[in-house]
Amino acid sequence: MSEQAMTPRSTDFSGWYQDVIREAELADYGPVRGTMVIRPYGYAIWEHIQRNLDRRFKETGHVNAYFPLFIPYSFLQKEKEHIEGFSPELALVTVGGGKELEEPLVVRPTSETIINYMFARWVKSYRDLPLLINQWANVVRWEMRTRPFLRTLEFLWQEGHTAHATYEEAEAEARRMIEVYRDFAEGDGAVPVIVGRKSRLETFAGAIHTYTMEAMMGDKRALQAGTSHNLGQNFAKAFDIRYLDEHNELQHVWQTSWGLSTRFVGAIIMVHGDDHGLRLPPRLAPVQVVIVPIWRNEAQRTAVLATVGRVQQLLAEAGIRVEADVRAQHTPGWKFNYWELKGVPVRVEIGPRDVESQTVVLARRDVPGKAGKTTGIPVEGVAERVRELLAEVQTALFEQARAFRDAHIHDVRSYDELRDVVAAGGWARGWWAGSDDDERRIKEETRATIRCFPFDQPEGDGPCLMTGQRAQQVAIFAKAY
Amino acid sequence: MSEQAMTPRSTDFSGWYQDVIREAELADYGPVRGTMVIRPYGYAIWEHIQRNLDRRFKETGHVNAYFPLFIPYSFLQKEKEHIEGFSPELALVTVGGGKELEEPLVVRPTSETIINYMFARWVKSYRDLPLLINQWANVVRWEMRTRPFLRTLEFLWQEGHTAHATYEEAEAEARRMIEVYRDFAEGDGAVPVIVGRKSRLETFAGAIHTYTMEAMMGDKRALQAGTSHNLGQNFAKAFDIRYLDEHNELQHVWQTSWGLSTRFVGAIIMVHGDDHGLRLPPRLAPVQVVIVPIWRNEAQRTAVLATVGRVQQLLAEAGIRVEADVRAQHTPGWKFNYWELKGVPVRVEIGPRDVESQTVVLARRDVPGKAGKTTGIPVEGVAERVRELLAEVQTALFEQARAFRDAHIHDVRSYDELRDVVAAGGWARGWWAGSDDDERRIKEETRATIRCFPFDQPEGDGPCLMTGQRAQQVAIFAKAY
Repeated sequence: MSEQAMTPRSTDFSGWYQDVIREAELADYGPVRGTMVIRPYGYAIWEHIQRNLDRRFKETGHVNAYFPLFIPYSFLQKEKEHIEGFSPELALVTVGGGKELEEPLVVRPTSETIINYMFARWVKSYRDLPLLINQWANVVRWEMRTRPFLRTLEFLWQEGHTAHATYEEAEAEARRMIEVYRDFAEGDGAVPVIVGRKSRLETFAGAIHTYTMEAMMGDKRALQAGTSHNLGQNFAKAFDIRYLDEHNELQHVWQTSWGLSTRFVGAIIMVHGDDHGLRLPPRLAPVQVVIVPIWRNEAQRTAVLATVGRVQQLLAEAGIRVEADVRAQHTPGWKFNYWELKGVPVRVEIGPRDVESQTVVLARRDVPGKAGKTTGIPVEGVAERVRELLAEVQTALFEQARAFRDAHIHDVRSYDELRDVVAAGGWARGWWAGSDDDERRIKEETRATIRCFPFDQPEGDGPCLMTGQRAQQVAIFAKAY
Repeated sequence: MSEQAMTPRSTDFSGWYQDVIREAELADYGPVRGTMVIRPYGYAIWEHIQRNLDRRFKETGHVNAYFPLFIPYSFLQKEKEHIEGFSPELALVTVGGGKELEEPLVVRPTSETIINYMFARWVKSYRDLPLLINQWANVVRWEMRTRPFLRTLEFLWQEGHTAHATYEEAEAEARRMIEVYRDFAEGDGAVPVIVGRKSRLETFAGAIHTYTMEAMMGDKRALQAGTSHNLGQNFAKAFDIRYLDEHNELQHVWQTSWGLSTRFVGAIIMVHGDDHGLRLPPRLAPVQVVIVPIWRNEAQRTAVLATVGRVQQLLAEAGIRVEADVRAQHTPGWKFNYWELKGVPVRVEIGPRDVESQTVVLARRDVPGKAGKTTGIPVEGVAERVRELLAEVQTALFEQARAFRDAHIHDVRSYDELRDVVAAGGWARGWWAGSDDDERRIKEETRATIRCFPFDQPEGDGPCLMTGQRAQQVAIFAKAY
């Protein structure tokens, strides 16, 4: 923690975001423009994201594998929309082992092409299907405007790639995985999301449907926090992935891909953070509880540290991720600020009077000041109470974010209303039957895009906010990261 | 499993190695020369390696972080020996986002330079030390002769990077980590290793000492299975990493780095495998136990599958990684071969007679035929017996590999004796006080290199096998992968 004051979140969200990342030591800038170093505290959050997602992937029958970083340039050209989408963002290796290469190698921006090249070699019969594979990897996209975690030249992610015998199975998988993401985002990240389908303009390059989960950040901008694509047979045809069906006939497979990245760390910062720094959801917090001892003299110090040790042991034995900050060079007040900045959900304070009564004080990160404090918790009951409190904080963060989001989604009936809502920073929801050109116009004029057609739709139909025509579905418009 | 016969291990070790990798579906060749796809079964072994190493790293106070893939070319030039060592193996990105780059970017072959560039920004005071960081990552080295897992253009590894206040602390860390590797290799991998120091010629480019663990493969060639380097102040000076000590004076830090890679999967294959395929150490086996049901008719099938389900449940509840192969299209005999090829340590057979007696048959992968079978294990006691058996298999694999290795290390007193031992495929151990040129001569004439000066040294001294001079230490010479 430097002496530098943090930018208040309310006055400059973007400055605040960068300050939090620096002061909480989540990340740093790499030497190459647009690259990021994920520092240990930030990486520990990512490790918890990985663990919680990986468990869900395995529970739904997926296995991990690893495919090469380098893809022959010609592979990307095989799927027409795919190369159009990614071509401006590619990093190319042209020299290897001191020699100019005959064909440049693409540093993977995503792995559909190389994975499907391999699938074509592995899939022979319907017995080989479904093929349900996930990869944890780094990918590179030559982005012009970068921001730590949200958009960087290189980022970490997982990318699922599956092959199925029928359209229906692929469609079910694409939807199953966006629901897995939702379950993770809301359950572990305490990040409320709206799940739905992307418009044609916003669909992944090479997919027939893209499903997305969209989260509202603290500045009310939208963040696409995870996507799942039904690829149809586009890649199967480009890479000739065919299987012999039960009737001994060759069929192209149907496919999906889906990904969630280190961008989600950015979502956690921007959804939950406040003027004092991070507020981490307990299920993803590297440190769930910090113990801060309070003493004035050496005798007190010895007595307090004994109780600190006991409490730390009780919490650790209960499987709670706990740290005791026993550093002598900092005051308790400094430590309170430090661990608030780090977003630790629960603080345990132990002073000489607590030692006498064999109790502790608990303080919630999400409820500031006295209102968030409980005194007189018996030492021997501390683990149970802390466990309850962590669950309460987890729920409270989610509910607070959901209330904030719901307060800023407005139903609109006309383009004028949409413009007003977006100009005020909110999300606009309205009936939509517009054309691609209508959608482009809105983007040019308001900088808002269709975030999704939510799965959760009102009954019936209504007049399109743009064209007045009968529309079957509502769309959500917002400015996005 | 294809119908193709496997090359016998005894007649063509290299052909056998490739057959095992293909047939057990551990890996496949990527489209770019020298690259490898790690298939789900091979990756699951790597995941167990990761989990077991990562736990040890964290227990010894290390934290994970992530540094960028792309390193400015100029960084590698800052440490003279480092660039000399790596320059022939570099992959260079020269085009990004459609434009020629001003400075080519190196795709990391290892991360000392970029990590130390960051350390220089983070380390300010003695309070920031030691800095104990690990990274799980992919790295690229433009190798000419590649072989799956052993030497590939891209591989996965972990690289530890630490900074310390004194030489002594860095030296202790470098030695601690090679011992962590030994503990993992022998304890989890059942791979016996000889731990020692590399000769000056074989020391890592930029280090002052390199410690290594060397394992003997089934063809008696050596494999360097993990290394740990004391970097001295070489990188600290190149990147100006300095800290204020307790006396408020600026000092350069002392550093280490250490790595273990997917190459270790190759070690497991080559140390334990036999003519029937893989033999996996239980602690790293993705599937520890496979249940193969045996039935002749539908009535038997129903009864057998009920018991299979019960046994599977009992084993899973005991935390054992178990699979039941209930496929109808394959015979039990086919399944025995299949899971032997996959190296699963223990097989449970359940047939109609076993159902009647409510017992099962256990078969060990490491002891072929009847000798490895135990019949009449009561269903309700199966978990306990299997747990014991897995521990027995783990120990037996280790002891067998150690006996094999020890039988092929020979003490030599002269260059002639060394030559004979190496020509016969063994490892030669002898007193050594030769020069770098003597060492080079041996390599040219015999293709054997000094694998290490083992930590475990005989007492006293002896005459150098090459020069006859008084030598303080013995070295081990062997041909290596």
